[in-house]
Amino acid sequence: MTEVEAKKPQESLQDRLAQVVDLLHRHRLVEDLTHRQEGQHQDRVDDLVRRQNLAELQRKLDELHPADIAHILEALPLDERLTVWQLVKAERDGDILLEVSDAVRETLIADMDDHELIAATRDMDVDELADLAPELPRDVVHELMESLDAQQRERMRSVLSYEEDQVGALMDFEMVTIREDVSLEVVLRYLRRLKELPGHTDKLFVVDYDGVLKGVLPIKRLLVNDPEKQVADVMASDPVSFHPDEDAYDAAQAFERYDLVSAPVVDKNGKLIGRLTIDEIVDLIREESESEVLNMAGLREEEDIFASVWKSVGNRWAWLALNLITAFIASRVIGLFDGSIEKLVALAALMPIVAGIGGNSGNQTITMIVRGIALDQVGTGNTSRLLRKELGVSLVNGLLWGGVIGLVAWWLYGNWSLGVVMTAAMTLNLLLAALMGVLIPMTLERLGKDPAMGASVMITAVTDSGGFFIFLGLATLFLL
Amino acid sequence: MTEVEAKKPQESLQDRLAQVVDLLHRHRLVEDLTHRQEGQHQDRVDDLVRRQNLAELQRKLDELHPADIAHILEALPLDERLTVWQLVKAERDGDILLEVSDAVRETLIADMDDHELIAATRDMDVDELADLAPELPRDVVHELMESLDAQQRERMRSVLSYEEDQVGALMDFEMVTIREDVSLEVVLRYLRRLKELPGHTDKLFVVDYDGVLKGVLPIKRLLVNDPEKQVADVMASDPVSFHPDEDAYDAAQAFERYDLVSAPVVDKNGKLIGRLTIDEIVDLIREESESEVLNMAGLREEEDIFASVWKSVGNRWAWLALNLITAFIASRVIGLFDGSIEKLVALAALMPIVAGIGGNSGNQTITMIVRGIALDQVGTGNTSRLLRKELGVSLVNGLLWGGVIGLVAWWLYGNWSLGVVMTAAMTLNLLLAALMGVLIPMTLERLGKDPAMGASVMITAVTDSGGFFIFLGLATLFLL
Repeated sequence: MTEVEAKKPQESLQDRLAQVVDLLHRHRLVEDLTHRQEGQHQDRVDDLVRRQNLAELQRKLDELHPADIAHILEALPLDERLTVWQLVKAERDGDILLEVSDAVRETLIADMDDHELIAATRDMDVDELADLAPELPRDVVHELMESLDAQQRERMRSVLSYEEDQVGALMDFEMVTIREDVSLEVVLRYLRRLKELPGHTDKLFVVDYDGVLKGVLPIKRLLVNDPEKQVADVMASDPVSFHPDEDAYDAAQAFERYDLVSAPVVDKNGKLIGRLTIDEIVDLIREESESEVLNMAGLREEEDIFASVWKSVGNRWAWLALNLITAFIASRVIGLFDGSIEKLVALAALMPIVAGIGGNSGNQTITMIVRGIALDQVGTGNTSRLLRKELGVSLVNGLLWGGVIGLVAWWLYGNWSLGVVMTAAMTLNLLLAALMGVLIPMTLERLGKDPAMGASVMITAVTDSGGFFIFLGLATLFLL
Repeated sequence: MTEVEAKKPQESLQDRLAQVVDLLHRHRLVEDLTHRQEGQHQDRVDDLVRRQNLAELQRKLDELHPADIAHILEALPLDERLTVWQLVKAERDGDILLEVSDAVRETLIADMDDHELIAATRDMDVDELADLAPELPRDVVHELMESLDAQQRERMRSVLSYEEDQVGALMDFEMVTIREDVSLEVVLRYLRRLKELPGHTDKLFVVDYDGVLKGVLPIKRLLVNDPEKQVADVMASDPVSFHPDEDAYDAAQAFERYDLVSAPVVDKNGKLIGRLTIDEIVDLIREESESEVLNMAGLREEEDIFASVWKSVGNRWAWLALNLITAFIASRVIGLFDGSIEKLVALAALMPIVAGIGGNSGNQTITMIVRGIALDQVGTGNTSRLLRKELGVSLVNGLLWGGVIGLVAWWLYGNWSLGVVMTAAMTLNLLLAALMGVLIPMTLERLGKDPAMGASVMITAVTDSGGFFIFLGLATLFLL
């Protein structure tokens, strides 16, 4: 869409949000009064004040960058969000829709009719349209497709055909292409004729007559070299490029590693079909890290913090149900030792310590291993070495902390053999945690699953049930 | 340092790593044989094979980008890592040191003498030197400082004076500055004389004679506008800029929001003192998200996956100790109800379910709130609204899952009042989890602490002790 110049922010984002909320509340207050005094002549005065507030708010919004308005919309509860949304000038709707998070975008789109949606999306680039398409009503998508020319429609279909985590879904088509057999002078004149260059153009793509990528001409080189030189003599002929079906996270790693700003996307015949830019990559990295944190707490998807109770329950119940099952299994393990607990009730008070510390230690191991897998540092070649290290760490921690808690148990319950059992159980459960902490993510990885996803529940299930079994089992054998 | 062109990778990173490991192992194997057959004439043959392997490995390494060598070094255990490190050409040492993670860099620096370190860092830019300085031996830093000219020394001191999370610590000094009263033609000629432009130059900085920033000239505009035009007519006069003492994460948000590639850093008088580039920002975002994940598991800092057992214990013990204390408190809470458990041993088996699900649910709430705070969406203005929502979600989940487990308890133990107590305790503990899940991070935030850091231990402490107390307390009141 139209490129908006980012202005130096005069106030911080929080300040601007506070101003908007303040204006909203003044508006709301007047509205409440009006409702209460309905039918009185007070009405017209209030109406005036209300309109003044809204006008001021609208002026405020008009000054803001679309990304800032998007942020404000995300930070407002649904009713206030929609009030602000209706005040935003229609021609900015599209830019803002592209900036907001998925969960909030859904609420905004639900508030627009087909007509408004088509107006907002008409001027979008194909790749932007493709981003929105899955959330738009069918009729709107259909009408938008009709308005595209054959090449654009083809490109849109192509972008939509890739998975969210493939390079093809992230690419845009704003490439500036040149030939290798012209001089830099000719390139400079050509660029001047274009009037505007796409954002993040740090290199031009050099293609032959069939559209096959021959190299890239970094703008830096274009600027510092003699204009008489030929493109072929100045270009980089073997640039980093991507295929549309490559994993987007691998592309992100390459962008980080080689400090790229943009890179060509080519098909299997080497034909240039699009480009990747750092802004999409930054968004991807941010989303990846956020979903990692959310997934660890069992939040399945981005949840609008002002989502309704029912939507939130829907987002969270599966995780709780899963944990309920594992907790129930642990409970049945305890049930096996009814008799032991009845005879020595101290066991009931001590057993959660063994299970809990095992869970913590196991999660530390898993976090290290999952991260190592993500960074390609952990492979099958070094499993045994990692396992030895983690078992060593657990042995030290088990003897150390198990020893401490064993002494405390002896002192509290005046039973030295209970203390020894406690120390032994802690150490064994930490060793179990280390073993499973290495094996679970590596097995998930080998099965082609995401090791970050299920690993944490599994380790907790193992260390809970295992911890109870080890501790109560040892106690039954040696104390009763 | 010298800029290295990123070549299109012919093989994936994993393949390259595998090749290096393979060559290393062949080298190792021969070495082992040599040791065993010492003194025999076999020696010379083995020595030959060994040298051939090393030569091949060295050839392989020479072809790789420094970032790729850095990755390989990170993925190798210490002894193999140092073998590879010694094979790397000395002139590439500096580039590689800048790319590796802090934990691995430490091991590499420990393997180098002062002489090697000075050679490796001599050609670095000031900002790169400042990155390494804290980890270099004092003598080396002293000698490096001596070799700098007055301006560079001043810049280095300035970068070192900022905290790691301030803009000043991330900035570099590779700015191309121009005056506003010249034509674009003059600018183009000036650039051509420079021979090379710094990486990530997407804009030139327009300054007056006192060095005060007047605006920026995006390269895009330089290329598409008539060369006869003056800089002042084409430049953006109110660009996004940063102060060196600003929070680096705020700068990162601005880069994301406004899709920046580079931005000027100015002092409080508006004088240009440096610039920020997207590559540093991407590294910052990545590090931020990694330390978030590591911190959640109580891993205090980046831990080299091949670190020694003792180093790992040092990194992890504090978290385990902290959790041991909270687990011990929960254990004492159970101890209060000794008598009840003795009378009804089913309580011991059921109580971990109440505590566990409370912890899961509380962590879901905390994750949402911490994320909202990080994105500036949660403020004091909407606490009560968020609290109502979270309490609502907990009430629904409590009645639902508490009801399920209550029915199961009734069926298992044939005691319907035990089932009712179980349901009530689950619901109350989930409500407690929601309350504390909102209040803990918001209080930490108001106290100026990092809400992500301690929130998770605290919520688990509350839901464990609280869960045991609620369940055993209700049981004591109504069942015994």
